Amino acid sequence: MLIVQKYGGSSVANLELMENIAKRIIKTKESGASLVVVLSAQGKTTDNLTEIANQVNPEGDKRERDMLLSTGEQHSIALMALILQRLGYPAISLTGWQAGIATSADHQSARIQDIDTGRLEKELSKGNIVIVAGFQGITCYGDITTLGRGGSDTTAVALAAALKADACQIYTDVDGVYSADPRIVPDAVKLSEISYSEMMELASMGAKVLEKRSVGLAKKYQVPLWVKHSHKELAGTLIKEGDEMEGISISGVVANTNIARISVSGIQDMPGVWFKIFNAMNDANIAIDFVYQTKHGNGTKDISFIVESDRMADAKKAISDNAHKLSYTQITSDTDTAKVSVVSKGASANPGIPSLMFEVLFDAGINIDSVSTSEIRVSVLINKDHANHAAGIIHKKFLDEGYIKE
Amino acid sequence: MLIVQKYGGSSVANLELMENIAKRIIKTKESGASLVVVLSAQGKTTDNLTEIANQVNPEGDKRERDMLLSTGEQHSIALMALILQRLGYPAISLTGWQAGIATSADHQSARIQDIDTGRLEKELSKGNIVIVAGFQGITCYGDITTLGRGGSDTTAVALAAALKADACQIYTDVDGVYSADPRIVPDAVKLSEISYSEMMELASMGAKVLEKRSVGLAKKYQVPLWVKHSHKELAGTLIKEGDEMEGISISGVVANTNIARISVSGIQDMPGVWFKIFNAMNDANIAIDFVYQTKHGNGTKDISFIVESDRMADAKKAISDNAHKLSYTQITSDTDTAKVSVVSKGASANPGIPSLMFEVLFDAGINIDSVSTSEIRVSVLINKDHANHAAGIIHKKFLDEGYIKE
Repeated sequence: MLIVQKYGGSSVANLELMENIAKRIIKTKESGASLVVVLSAQGKTTDNLTEIANQVNPEGDKRERDMLLSTGEQHSIALMALILQRLGYPAISLTGWQAGIATSADHQSARIQDIDTGRLEKELSKGNIVIVAGFQGITCYGDITTLGRGGSDTTAVALAAALKADACQIYTDVDGVYSADPRIVPDAVKLSEISYSEMMELASMGAKVLEKRSVGLAKKYQVPLWVKHSHKELAGTLIKEGDEMEGISISGVVANTNIARISVSGIQDMPGVWFKIFNAMNDANIAIDFVYQTKHGNGTKDISFIVESDRMADAKKAISDNAHKLSYTQITSDTDTAKVSVVSKGASANPGIPSLMFEVLFDAGINIDSVSTSEIRVSVLINKDHANHAAGIIHKKFLDEGYIKE
Repeated sequence: MLIVQKYGGSSVANLELMENIAKRIIKTKESGASLVVVLSAQGKTTDNLTEIANQVNPEGDKRERDMLLSTGEQHSIALMALILQRLGYPAISLTGWQAGIATSADHQSARIQDIDTGRLEKELSKGNIVIVAGFQGITCYGDITTLGRGGSDTTAVALAAALKADACQIYTDVDGVYSADPRIVPDAVKLSEISYSEMMELASMGAKVLEKRSVGLAKKYQVPLWVKHSHKELAGTLIKEGDEMEGISISGVVANTNIARISVSGIQDMPGVWFKIFNAMNDANIAIDFVYQTKHGNGTKDISFIVESDRMADAKKAISDNAHKLSYTQITSDTDTAKVSVVSKGASANPGIPSLMFEVLFDAGINIDSVSTSEIRVSVLINKDHANHAAGIIHKKFLDEGYIKE
């Protein structure tokens, strides 16, 4: 039995919390499992290091930022190994490069390409609890990389896949995946199981419990993925391959207020305009959503779309950098809009889902700006001020109608 | 022209100081030199990390401590590279392992065994200012090591030797090597040159400007070694091979109050007793000095010796760990003694040096406990309370007599 556990920054934010996590690790070890533990940097360390890097050089190269940021996880893993040793358990810490995590050279958002499990297996065979630095790897040139957002989850899933682990457990500050954010929707229900695909949609729509990327990786390698509470003994949520796509059940309602609308106005309407805008966003690695256009009589048009609000500046820059290819008059942006989504494995086959959602919003007098759907999701854009309320009333309706199951 | 520069922790303690150092680095770069810069961790970082390690596990294995401590230099080098990039200069940071620094597996006090200069030379040939993490290396097993006290100086000298650099410049918070500690002896004179051997004696005797180990390495590879002030434009001191050993000149007077006396009492006087004590100290890597014995009528004896005060506990432990090999009644220790030394290239050939030193102490009514000499040094043990005063009056006498030259 081999288990990969991952503990995030808030779970190891101080020494007292680390001691608790150490006891949890030991409990798993005592159950007889071989154990690989992936840790994030403590608390706000990564944010603080990023701030220092911005302070000394807002434009400095990403390789050096990775050099700086990767110290955070190295700090965590050494401390955890020392704590476990004090408690009488053999433990060894490994950085990303020591754990054999080979990545692309895309500093700050590197992709894991391969894992050489030699050292990991050697340490496991010695009976060591192996503590691995999350969020980091090494290029073929010998440079340290970081994996970008959700990187430590990705490390854990990738290690579980490479080591063919029996389970990958993501420990966090919530006790599982909920049908909605319990801070916003008090009657949100904890799900005991959810499919990889639905979890990916929830993550894409703004649910913060897991990054889409790590869920996608788990799906690809069929790694049984658990979300559990770091400091509570609860069952958590299992993310696995969906059994059947029949029937309707809602896995979650998500309100995402961290979005921005970008509008490019006065575009000369020529062939290739769409391609050029999409391409510029793709090159900058910015996901876009809710794309729509407004045509004007004079042969120009406006194109608007939604991005994550923390990519707003990047998105505008990506377009203005391509101004020579696109003829437009101005770029504007706002953050007045929110996206509310319902993820349901029966969504596309069941028009009842969107219609119920629209009915609830209509009854509440909330105006829908735009709608977007996928195979297992329905999303609407509404005024940001109504977002949390909308999520709550939609969730309540689906709960009352029996569509949400624990 | 290739120059290796090293800046210590106090020189890079905060971002403002780092900016100053960056300007200094650029000045050297602008002179046309290729440049490797070795940095320590910022300010008290290493001490703070050691304290955290002690807090979570006073006995934790040294490999994990190295994992923790080595983050300090990695932090410094990334920041410096970012600062240099902002100022418009190509720079790249390399950790110890990236710089090819292979060491023994003696964690916390590893020895540099070899340097693979491939990556360093590649980065230099691209025109990069190469910023290397001091104090650290990698074992043949792929584990991170630290080099122990004075480790960053050793890194700089070893890199200078491996790269056949034209000079190795150690930047610090004093403007060179002085004939005595200027904080204690106000008329101390800055030396423009000193031989490797004399500098090693000064360092052994407690002068803090350089560790003996790095000077020994510079001597072995004949690396021209400079000590210069981090933030002032001054000539500094050149440490090089001594030209001639004729004539008398005093290179320094050192008072070392950080020593402890260990006494092992009631030892059964059998063959091998000395060997066993020396061997125990050697195994624990503890340098000893001023060894003397007192024989008793009953066939037992006491053996006393001096160690650095921060090794006192280790020394006592090394002996008690060997209690089964040595028959003794008790181990005692005290820190009431200080060592005052005169380093002079003519010391052994010129009895005038020790006699002048003893005369000064006699005139001042300071009692000498014990004397120890080497080819180029005379040391006395005296009461700690008189140490700084003794260093001052000895220095003044030699200065007045014309033995100390700038």
